[in-house]
Amino acid sequence: MSADSSGESIAADRASSPADTLTAAERGARALGGDPVRVAIVGATGYVGAELVRLLALHPYVRIAGLVGRERRGDPIAHIHPHLATKDLKVYDNVPDDAEAVFLALPHGVAAARAGEYLGNGQTVIDMGPDFRFRDAADYETWYHAEHPRPDLLPGAVYGLPELHRSALAELGTRPGAIIGSPGCYATTAILSLAPLAREGLIADVVVDAKSGVSGAGRDPKADLHFGEVNESVKAYGMFTHRHTGEIEQELLSQSPAADANPGAVGIDFLPHLVPMTRGILAACHVRPTRPVTQAELDAIYADAYGDEAFVTVVEHAPATKHVLGSNEFRVWCHVDDRTGRVLAIGVLDNMVKGAAGQAIQAFNVLHGLPETTALLQLPLAP
Amino acid sequence: MSADSSGESIAADRASSPADTLTAAERGARALGGDPVRVAIVGATGYVGAELVRLLALHPYVRIAGLVGRERRGDPIAHIHPHLATKDLKVYDNVPDDAEAVFLALPHGVAAARAGEYLGNGQTVIDMGPDFRFRDAADYETWYHAEHPRPDLLPGAVYGLPELHRSALAELGTRPGAIIGSPGCYATTAILSLAPLAREGLIADVVVDAKSGVSGAGRDPKADLHFGEVNESVKAYGMFTHRHTGEIEQELLSQSPAADANPGAVGIDFLPHLVPMTRGILAACHVRPTRPVTQAELDAIYADAYGDEAFVTVVEHAPATKHVLGSNEFRVWCHVDDRTGRVLAIGVLDNMVKGAAGQAIQAFNVLHGLPETTALLQLPLAP
Amino acid sequence: MSADSSGESIAADRASSPADTLTAAERGARALGGDPVRVAIVGATGYVGAELVRLLALHPYVRIAGLVGRERRGDPIAHIHPHLATKDLKVYDNVPDDAEAVFLALPHGVAAARAGEYLGNGQTVIDMGPDFRFRDAADYETWYHAEHPRPDLLPGAVYGLPELHRSALAELGTRPGAIIGSPGCYATTAILSLAPLAREGLIADVVVDAKSGVSGAGRDPKADLHFGEVNESVKAYGMFTHRHTGEIEQELLSQSPAADANPGAVGIDFLPHLVPMTRGILAACHVRPTRPVTQAELDAIYADAYGDEAFVTVVEHAPATKHVLGSNEFRVWCHVDDRTGRVLAIGVLDNMVKGAAGQAIQAFNVLHGLPETTALLQLPLAP
Amino acid sequence: MSADSSGESIAADRASSPADTLTAAERGARALGGDPVRVAIVGATGYVGAELVRLLALHPYVRIAGLVGRERRGDPIAHIHPHLATKDLKVYDNVPDDAEAVFLALPHGVAAARAGEYLGNGQTVIDMGPDFRFRDAADYETWYHAEHPRPDLLPGAVYGLPELHRSALAELGTRPGAIIGSPGCYATTAILSLAPLAREGLIADVVVDAKSGVSGAGRDPKADLHFGEVNESVKAYGMFTHRHTGEIEQELLSQSPAADANPGAVGIDFLPHLVPMTRGILAACHVRPTRPVTQAELDAIYADAYGDEAFVTVVEHAPATKHVLGSNEFRVWCHVDDRTGRVLAIGVLDNMVKGAAGQAIQAFNVLHGLPETTALLQLPLAP
Repeated sequence: MSADSSGESIAADRASSPADTLTAAERGARALGGDPVRVAIVGATGYVGAELVRLLALHPYVRIAGLVGRERRGDPIAHIHPHLATKDLKVYDNVPDDAEAVFLALPHGVAAARAGEYLGNGQTVIDMGPDFRFRDAADYETWYHAEHPRPDLLPGAVYGLPELHRSALAELGTRPGAIIGSPGCYATTAILSLAPLAREGLIADVVVDAKSGVSGAGRDPKADLHFGEVNESVKAYGMFTHRHTGEIEQELLSQSPAADANPGAVGIDFLPHLVPMTRGILAACHVRPTRPVTQAELDAIYADAYGDEAFVTVVEHAPATKHVLGSNEFRVWCHVDDRTGRVLAIGVLDNMVKGAAGQAIQAFNVLHGLPETTALLQLPLAP
Repeated sequence: MSADSSGESIAADRASSPADTLTAAERGARALGGDPVRVAIVGATGYVGAELVRLLALHPYVRIAGLVGRERRGDPIAHIHPHLATKDLKVYDNVPDDAEAVFLALPHGVAAARAGEYLGNGQTVIDMGPDFRFRDAADYETWYHAEHPRPDLLPGAVYGLPELHRSALAELGTRPGAIIGSPGCYATTAILSLAPLAREGLIADVVVDAKSGVSGAGRDPKADLHFGEVNESVKAYGMFTHRHTGEIEQELLSQSPAADANPGAVGIDFLPHLVPMTRGILAACHVRPTRPVTQAELDAIYADAYGDEAFVTVVEHAPATKHVLGSNEFRVWCHVDDRTGRVLAIGVLDNMVKGAAGQAIQAFNVLHGLPETTALLQLPLAP
Repeated sequence: MSADSSGESIAADRASSPADTLTAAERGARALGGDPVRVAIVGATGYVGAELVRLLALHPYVRIAGLVGRERRGDPIAHIHPHLATKDLKVYDNVPDDAEAVFLALPHGVAAARAGEYLGNGQTVIDMGPDFRFRDAADYETWYHAEHPRPDLLPGAVYGLPELHRSALAELGTRPGAIIGSPGCYATTAILSLAPLAREGLIADVVVDAKSGVSGAGRDPKADLHFGEVNESVKAYGMFTHRHTGEIEQELLSQSPAADANPGAVGIDFLPHLVPMTRGILAACHVRPTRPVTQAELDAIYADAYGDEAFVTVVEHAPATKHVLGSNEFRVWCHVDDRTGRVLAIGVLDNMVKGAAGQAIQAFNVLHGLPETTALLQLPLAP
Repeated sequence: MSADSSGESIAADRASSPADTLTAAERGARALGGDPVRVAIVGATGYVGAELVRLLALHPYVRIAGLVGRERRGDPIAHIHPHLATKDLKVYDNVPDDAEAVFLALPHGVAAARAGEYLGNGQTVIDMGPDFRFRDAADYETWYHAEHPRPDLLPGAVYGLPELHRSALAELGTRPGAIIGSPGCYATTAILSLAPLAREGLIADVVVDAKSGVSGAGRDPKADLHFGEVNESVKAYGMFTHRHTGEIEQELLSQSPAADANPGAVGIDFLPHLVPMTRGILAACHVRPTRPVTQAELDAIYADAYGDEAFVTVVEHAPATKHVLGSNEFRVWCHVDDRTGRVLAIGVLDNMVKGAAGQAIQAFNVLHGLPETTALLQLPLAP
């Protein structure tokens, strides 16, 4: 099989192309003219890193300028991710200087500690972890039990959920030093499921009961990710303490019409489960609404919220995670139970795509002024 | 492989052993003396029927006197359930006269329509379906959208959950015409998870978010049970309308200290999901308690409720369905979230055993005055 | 979500665009100029039909002019295949007249019976079933136990495996009345694994032991495709009689240097297994070679055979089916056992892509003179 | 839940019951009289150790006198194996002196190095690993690439496959210093599938293509046992080098009528695969027989070989691994292909039971003169 050679010439590129000082928007404009944005992926040996490669390798306005992983001086990516064997990409131990955007798939705390260096090189940072998701460092510290390494950078970051922050992302692209805090997989599912209700002030007392495939837990072998443990079993985990709870509360509160008067949007009861599948998240959001609602109202609220969204579909039948497998789609179903008056919103996505790599590329596209759906139009893989 | 011959001699048995008119308790006493209770299984071609065979075949006080299935005149059970190939049992199209107890694994409505005939023959009825689960025929009609065929029989039935109705079951065994309405699989999981809280009057506003393997949906091939649809997917179903909701509400209300003053125990928000596994149910029960509770209180409540139960274990770590696979065990974990004051109870069981066949045998044992754990001590199968 | 409208205007199209009488090559040339080839998919309600939609929907030189399914007058495709909900395509009960190429995903026998009509309309036929795979109608009759409906059409058909018949496919595209008999999924796996050895005359006495996911068995619900039966189980099936055996023998014999002198290429011992996964085939081909070979020879033979192929990769480590999931890739590993002198070739593919829809599009591309990889460059989806 | 207390009193037992010097047969006779055989399990933290506990806990003639695991001073078994939570057993770091039989689930080499000590204490050794499977230390060294630590002990060991070596096992039980080398899981499957053919001298040129669930690879977390890697994937492994090959060859050769004249029984082409399930092995054994055979001959050969075996069933339809899940059953199907003259034998078992713990208990029963099926009559768990 013939192969591209983009990974081979890193050293040469470095010498000839020191990182410029353009904004993301300027680089995007240049890319549309034929000179792609050079991106690096740090943490390419993990699942999220591999997924970024899978999608970016076919992005017409991007060139993968470098893959970075621990102690992998020149190993072909296929040694770590056999499914990427047809791409002639190698893994190095640092980011090439000419990279213009850096995707970080790193442990929390590490990303923030390094981000300053990348920003100093004129590189845009898209962080897949939690370090730039919170607007208030105190929230980070509450949920991660650690001091934030660079609270000074938080004001320059935007939560990378285009459906909620599209204009902020686009505006961010016109400034140097852009940082995207790409949302958590569970958080994306819960927030997109509930944001329309939050905007209407309907949310109070919410239970978010979520189910995830295993890939969200990462690629490191652990006893509880062993096939023999996961297969034919369901379990809850992270009871009361899952860190995405903080993100969900922050974003839903930010959507509420009278945030400070709406304590119901705080105190989400979030419970994740591990189910025996590889990809996919389903969140069942059980809401006791602040006032009675009709199905017609709900239909209008969701149609209004998502009618123009390329990656969100409001569905008539309860969605299954397989309906969106491998794609950047989010689907949501929201109904009222006439017997009890409760409202149920069910959202699904592929945690590796709309819950991670795809979402980050979507935000990257917005940031750079590129068509938002670029490289993200693959249809779901079923059965 | 040598085989038993219990299935061969049905015709002869019928002639020589017309059904007697003993009570279940009398038959149980006789069985302890060496003359086993003769049982028939109606609906033996389904999953629940097969599971009854698997467990009863090794019951020392029971003899399988007949398997009954539609249009299966003399077919070996292995033609339908290959895993039972070593048992020389055949499937016929009616119940032998000398059967003393009849397990019914039939569609709802059908069981009630036939039960009178079996009772008339002096046969005890253990119904695996919903026909005898409701004390009030109106509740049956609400959830099953059909008139109850024999509301007159309901007063003679007991809900077959020994942990809640042990003495009623034992008392029932001393009367002729005994009927057990064996609980639904989801209902068992939710009720056993929440009954200790209900008794303390702590329940109001409950979300029961449950996840089940596929076997609960039965053996008939259907598009949405095709491996290609179920595998690598999670979906919710039966939103707002799942029929086990009625059972859960009835039983929890019956446990409440002041039922009529506690509208919170009515209106359970029950949502089942299908997950890609064969057996197992996990119910996450999200409770906003009627008053603040401490963990120490919860520990005491559950220890008190279940300390003497052979098949219920209160666990320290969140349970997984695989921990109870193939066994009659129920495990429950209950904690309070100090941040929000909410209570979370998580219960797991094997839907084919404690959720169906095992539970029915447990109630059968109590009814007949046999040791409650007889034939049910197999340990879980893991990994 | 906004949607394309390609499905809406079928009636109008029919009136305005009667099928022309160009050859496939001429239509391909026209498509490169901006006027896509109009294709119909017959049998769009099955798994293969859906997979054709998934891939063709993003084919830049193709427009889906019609989906055809039984008794589906105007149903949106999402009613049958929810994962395709974002495509505004509907299913009708016949092929639009203006379609230029027709993909047939139909039961064997039915495709051949209808093909004449499509050819008469000037439409190219790409048959996903077996009707046009055999050069000799007698072979069809041996394996399918039925008379071939149209043996007269067989000389006009080419076996649609571009790696073996690329030039014949291209040549076929220059003639009217083209028919492609798209290979079976197992057959593709076995043939591509063994063809290099066959060409060297090394094959005699071959065991092909293959393992497949469930999707190859189709979407119709059947007892043995029920999740409860497939999950956590492996079984062999079709012992001695699987119909792909005939294809494998035909093609390997055709590659042999002295076919009539090489009876070893006949009499493949082919055994398929069903494993609990949805997609993927792995074939382990156990060969006792006709003469001793070294690993260096084998490496050279496979490099020579596949070095220029876009969709075939010779790998150093034993491949897993997941390495190619969702992609059109075929991977093969071939080694000699120094202890026994036997040769083992292991091939993997995704049965829905390189084993069905992708392969057919690859052959379609060659037939039309389009770049062979068009619409087929998606990378595998892992984990 | 009430619990047994067998694990609590180890210290006391040690003082009062020093290991006696009875033979296994004498201990078995004593156990039938009410004084159970005291057994220890070394390696109780692994999957095989847990399975031994699962089965032995209900063995009426056995008392678990001690569980041994690395660095687990007094940990409850449930900390390692949650499914065993209802058993009040703890894990210690050495074997109690009063144990009479010791099951070893240890890495190869380690078991042989320690066995002498146990034998010196008058303890019977049942080794689950390979150290005592080979009659010739040279074969061990060939396949394990290590010197055998105690070749002097090999003459005192019997290969623990009762169907082949029942009388040798019984005779061994009458001598002190008994060692059982319990067969490998793949080896059991292949040997039981092929032994009847080997005895008839029909075997030459055999391909054994086997498929296994993941539990056979043990409980240690490894990258290639991660759910994300195993699920939805099939791969071959151990090509040409899997160590069970040596066992298969030894045992089949030993069954051959003229071993030294039958080189065909040497040189098995054995290929194992990992399939996405937890338990179960299926071996497809492809045989080119040394002379033509008819189906009637095959039927007679297998009926003759296995008609009296409690755990072997010759089946009419190709068996699936799920048909024997959780049980000690082995099922085999053997047919001749009239087209090619080849013979195909397909065997299935549960690798944790008949492939490991169950088989060892079966041999233990024979060794002790106990009914062979004791504690092993659980029926398979399906669906």
